[in-house]
Amino acid sequence: MIDQSTICAISTSPGIGAIAVIRLSGSDAVSIADKVFQSPAKGKNLRGQKANTLHFGQIVFKNEVIDEVVVAVFRAPHSFTGEDIVEISCHGSIFIQQKILEVLVENGARLALPGEFTQRAFLNGKMDLSQAEAVADVIASSNAAAHKLAINQMRGGFSKEINALRAQMLHFTAMIELELDFAEEEVEFADRTELRNLTERIEKLLRKLKNSFQLGNAIKNGIPVAIIGETNVGKSTLLNALLNEEKAIVSNIHGTTRDVIEDVVNIHGTAFRFFDTAGIRETTDHIETLGIERSYSKLDLATVVLLVVDMQNPFPVVKQRIDKIRDRITDSQKLIVVANKIDTGLHETIQQLEVMDISDNEKLIFIAAKKKHNLEELIDAMIHSVNLEAANQEDIIVTNARHFEILKNAHEAIVRVLNGLDSGITGDFLAQDIRECMHYLSEITGEVGTEEVLGHIFKNFCIGK
Amino acid sequence: MIDQSTICAISTSPGIGAIAVIRLSGSDAVSIADKVFQSPAKGKNLRGQKANTLHFGQIVFKNEVIDEVVVAVFRAPHSFTGEDIVEISCHGSIFIQQKILEVLVENGARLALPGEFTQRAFLNGKMDLSQAEAVADVIASSNAAAHKLAINQMRGGFSKEINALRAQMLHFTAMIELELDFAEEEVEFADRTELRNLTERIEKLLRKLKNSFQLGNAIKNGIPVAIIGETNVGKSTLLNALLNEEKAIVSNIHGTTRDVIEDVVNIHGTAFRFFDTAGIRETTDHIETLGIERSYSKLDLATVVLLVVDMQNPFPVVKQRIDKIRDRITDSQKLIVVANKIDTGLHETIQQLEVMDISDNEKLIFIAAKKKHNLEELIDAMIHSVNLEAANQEDIIVTNARHFEILKNAHEAIVRVLNGLDSGITGDFLAQDIRECMHYLSEITGEVGTEEVLGHIFKNFCIGK
Repeated sequence: MIDQSTICAISTSPGIGAIAVIRLSGSDAVSIADKVFQSPAKGKNLRGQKANTLHFGQIVFKNEVIDEVVVAVFRAPHSFTGEDIVEISCHGSIFIQQKILEVLVENGARLALPGEFTQRAFLNGKMDLSQAEAVADVIASSNAAAHKLAINQMRGGFSKEINALRAQMLHFTAMIELELDFAEEEVEFADRTELRNLTERIEKLLRKLKNSFQLGNAIKNGIPVAIIGETNVGKSTLLNALLNEEKAIVSNIHGTTRDVIEDVVNIHGTAFRFFDTAGIRETTDHIETLGIERSYSKLDLATVVLLVVDMQNPFPVVKQRIDKIRDRITDSQKLIVVANKIDTGLHETIQQLEVMDISDNEKLIFIAAKKKHNLEELIDAMIHSVNLEAANQEDIIVTNARHFEILKNAHEAIVRVLNGLDSGITGDFLAQDIRECMHYLSEITGEVGTEEVLGHIFKNFCIGK
Repeated sequence: MIDQSTICAISTSPGIGAIAVIRLSGSDAVSIADKVFQSPAKGKNLRGQKANTLHFGQIVFKNEVIDEVVVAVFRAPHSFTGEDIVEISCHGSIFIQQKILEVLVENGARLALPGEFTQRAFLNGKMDLSQAEAVADVIASSNAAAHKLAINQMRGGFSKEINALRAQMLHFTAMIELELDFAEEEVEFADRTELRNLTERIEKLLRKLKNSFQLGNAIKNGIPVAIIGETNVGKSTLLNALLNEEKAIVSNIHGTTRDVIEDVVNIHGTAFRFFDTAGIRETTDHIETLGIERSYSKLDLATVVLLVVDMQNPFPVVKQRIDKIRDRITDSQKLIVVANKIDTGLHETIQQLEVMDISDNEKLIFIAAKKKHNLEELIDAMIHSVNLEAANQEDIIVTNARHFEILKNAHEAIVRVLNGLDSGITGDFLAQDIRECMHYLSEITGEVGTEEVLGHIFKNFCIGK
């Protein structure tokens, strides 16, 4: 049952602005607004107005003019929520915003819950669940790549991909079920080779989507970066230089444990998440207390590992550090060896390092952090260490943890189908796994789902959306 | 010359919201918006759209979808600025807001200066200067009374009063000038008694307006309250009790000197400005260090003086304090004697105080600040100490310091006219003073004024208005 009450909220950013917008949605939106709206044109009311029109007038309550406003009228079903919507554009004083809300509630509206407008848009079929989720991501996106992914998802790009996958599976089950209908005749309508090809294609697609989450998450929440290195190699100088980059916007995120502090930094439109930087930032170069062993403990979380080495050390010492890290990182991590202090370093160390073999997922950058020399090259390397370009292609990138969990389950189910085909199990078992896989995908677009899931999704929205 | 360029700004409160509104005004507003707007309806463009209509579509730049938006089209002269206006309602991410601004600037708009939309409304004759000034007051108003005055002024209430005054003066000068035309015939067309009556009426009105500023300023910026009293009488307990009133919203205002801190508190919709409270707030009852002498220095600034006296003291001591303050305050100030600690006070002191004579501009309230006993009565007395009811009548209250300065000058000019009539000076001198008075009044509504004045007025507006 869809809640039929008329809801209202301030939809613009809280605080004082030139104007603010108060949104009303529901079957009584126009009539409630009409009770408090007075047009300078005699006898004019909002109820008589066409969809998608604007009207100047006053909000009047108990004979007192609250404000001069412009009112926008949208009509069901051609509105954001699919219901009648009235948007009141008022002067942006907090007093007026609150007063108009009060007056609307006094006249029969109720205050909207977080995300309730978008939830209604979903419930009224204006968008599917993955699109609705993307609305919150669009509002929260703070860099170009994250914004692009969110807009694409909001416009249905991801849903289209999921629906295409489901259509393929439906074809699969249709074939299997035809076979089951004629089971006693021992006919195999579903050509096992064809089925295998189809299943492999679906498995590959699901795997690709699932795996895109690492990238998607990095784009949405910042690429996880660990800065490690011995005491006194210049980690704090480097971190401060990166954080003080002209265009960097730094925000601290306090983790679940007291001593994990993450700095999210937007550099040239890409978000990086430096973690466990508290220890580094608190120290200066000379009294740097954070040993390399402690840094190791966070290494697994990083997509990019910046290993800072000191060019003032002899090459064998430097090489030993690098090899030690090489043993610890995985294939999915990128190692950037940051050779610091080239301005004061040993000529021999630099020379020998320059000719050191490096693998595909490694990079070697020479810098002088204190003089901010070559930082741009390092930043470039960091940006390119994650294949962000993928986001610029038409590829679908998964950014939502809920979707990732569902895709993992869906992928497991399709792997069971593949194994089943290998071991020659009967069609009804195959059909069961493929139906399970389809069911998971339906959870992404919200065709199946519990109220609990919906409640959880929308409670993280801001009020007014 | 009115600037014909098309200006743009984010008009909603800065920060993340469900939606944000970006405003474009100027002759190219529609065509600039059209360059970046794509409707899902093929071939539809904004240029072809009627005034006061809403259009769903996308903002697209260099083949990239920036956002899905709703665009409102207003047409000159029926818009806020009197020019063509386009308002783009987008998702409220900071990234999107900035990006759309960028795209608009890229396509020929320029960023608006603070208050530039309202300035254009003034320059295009959509409102006079005092109305334009009230727009900023409406946005800044944080309590019911200030809001009411600002809305009334924005809707032209004050301008009407000023124009009525000017019309009377015009009648005056017309009579005088007729007389001057026939000077050689020694005819007095302008009956001196009639002139005197008229001038007295104008003087009275100007004086009333001028004097209303104290009230208007108190309403707009808070009623100035001083809390004074000997050490250990309970000033800090009282202040904290008032500041902690459930409905009180406290904000600190740092003054020009380091040690002046003002607390503006909204109590029951009325703003109070407690000044020099830093010393009081920092202390506790027992180590209260702020002596009565120091409080005296700020006494002149207060409209309401709260003199806290301790009922644990003998009556003669209390009486001495009261008399000392009575000598220091002026007729325009209200003295509220706050008799504190009635729960633990001396019976005799309370009895004798109860029968003490009090004058019209004094009040006596018995409280127990620690137990929050009788605070409501004190608040009532504070609210009624300034005749705020005047604001609820149809009386015009001056809230703007610029208007107050002008009214002072205008009043001086009209007093010169009165004196001239007394001393029987010739008509041409009278006419000169009356013309000067009219000139001043024109500065209020902006019919005369320099660009400098305009620049000063609008630079204090927020961006986007």
